[in-house]
Amino acid sequence: MSARDTNARPAQSAQPVKGAGDAPRPARRRGRPASADRAAAGEAARDRILASARAEFAERGYDKASIRSIARGAEVDPALVHHYFGTKEQVFEAAAEVSFAPAAEGLGHLVPHGPDGLGEELVRFFLGVWEDPAVRAPLLAVVRSALSNETAARIFRGMVTRQLMARVAHRLDAPDRRLRVELAAAQMVGVAIMRYVLEIEPLASAEPEELVARLAPAVQHHLTGPVGEHPRGG
Amino acid sequence: MSARDTNARPAQSAQPVKGAGDAPRPARRRGRPASADRAAAGEAARDRILASARAEFAERGYDKASIRSIARGAEVDPALVHHYFGTKEQVFEAAAEVSFAPAAEGLGHLVPHGPDGLGEELVRFFLGVWEDPAVRAPLLAVVRSALSNETAARIFRGMVTRQLMARVAHRLDAPDRRLRVELAAAQMVGVAIMRYVLEIEPLASAEPEELVARLAPAVQHHLTGPVGEHPRGG
Repeated sequence: MSARDTNARPAQSAQPVKGAGDAPRPARRRGRPASADRAAAGEAARDRILASARAEFAERGYDKASIRSIARGAEVDPALVHHYFGTKEQVFEAAAEVSFAPAAEGLGHLVPHGPDGLGEELVRFFLGVWEDPAVRAPLLAVVRSALSNETAARIFRGMVTRQLMARVAHRLDAPDRRLRVELAAAQMVGVAIMRYVLEIEPLASAEPEELVARLAPAVQHHLTGPVGEHPRGG
Repeated sequence: MSARDTNARPAQSAQPVKGAGDAPRPARRRGRPASADRAAAGEAARDRILASARAEFAERGYDKASIRSIARGAEVDPALVHHYFGTKEQVFEAAAEVSFAPAAEGLGHLVPHGPDGLGEELVRFFLGVWEDPAVRAPLLAVVRSALSNETAARIFRGMVTRQLMARVAHRLDAPDRRLRVELAAAQMVGVAIMRYVLEIEPLASAEPEELVARLAPAVQHHLTGPVGEHPRGG
């Protein structure tokens, strides 16, 4: 699910405000009623605000980004940021949802092979998401904000729990499935941080398929393995 | 922040930075000559600087902390910070080493039970370190800086590799032991972030012993298990 779908569409009455920047408005189609023009302009402004918010949070982190700096980047009045998104916290949530969308949508589209293959399926999917720098960079930005600010952490926690963990947990049948999914996720979160952020070698340069082979058993163990027994293979 | 609590401890574990301080270590005896008094005063100033640096990096992160702010916190001239530690980068490294000392020293003192029990041993040790808020807070501060600044990441990477990973890897006999140790570490890093920073439930409230039982097999698998076989226990 994308942020676009979950956030309220701009109201027809939304007044696009000409901001501090004086870039010309995008060309409008001729012959449309004025209200449709206004709606399209509002939609465009909303998109610009969201793009500016993602860039601001990525570059400056949650603490330093402000409604004012986001408005400046989008060349709109700060009041319009409030109008479309509300508080800074809500802007962050909308921006983070866009960054999470590829992962959340992908998880929703995974073909279920039953619990026995879930470990490998998840590791492969997870690495696929993180191997793409265009997807990785905004995800990392959200993670960085979450690790340094309590409000961002709370939003991140809710998003991860609802959009990622819950989608995996519902495939399992054990009463402790939430803890199982979280331990599996912890394995992958740690790999992401050590491989893509800290770039610790040889992990940073290992082939994805080698990592799948090594990680899938550990992840599968968390999801469906016995608790408290050593899962050493033969 | 409890970072200050651990700052109070004597800097025995802090490695004197090579070539930075020319003060001899203090000989705390009576009737010492004036030069020894000066040395003791220098030592005290150095400790104050280190404590201030740890607090500054913890509160403001690597980017925002400065030699000037560290000097102000220690009530010394900025030139003295340079004198004892060198650049901001070197101050960070010295501060991070103090924060890492409990983990690094503890790892060095683990009684080796041979590779078969290493997974459980490491998980128990790791959770012990992170369960202590006075140890955890400064570690988290270093991790946060490393995740948001490339220089801090490089220092952190070197420290983790030399002081933690290498101490575990030398207990293993496999040619891929570095990758094995890193995947095991990734499991624990992910748990630390999800349990202690993001506080995702039920992981955040799980009993340490339950986590040992669940994590030890996965960690052991990485250290000594077969590659590419599913380690499901019976």
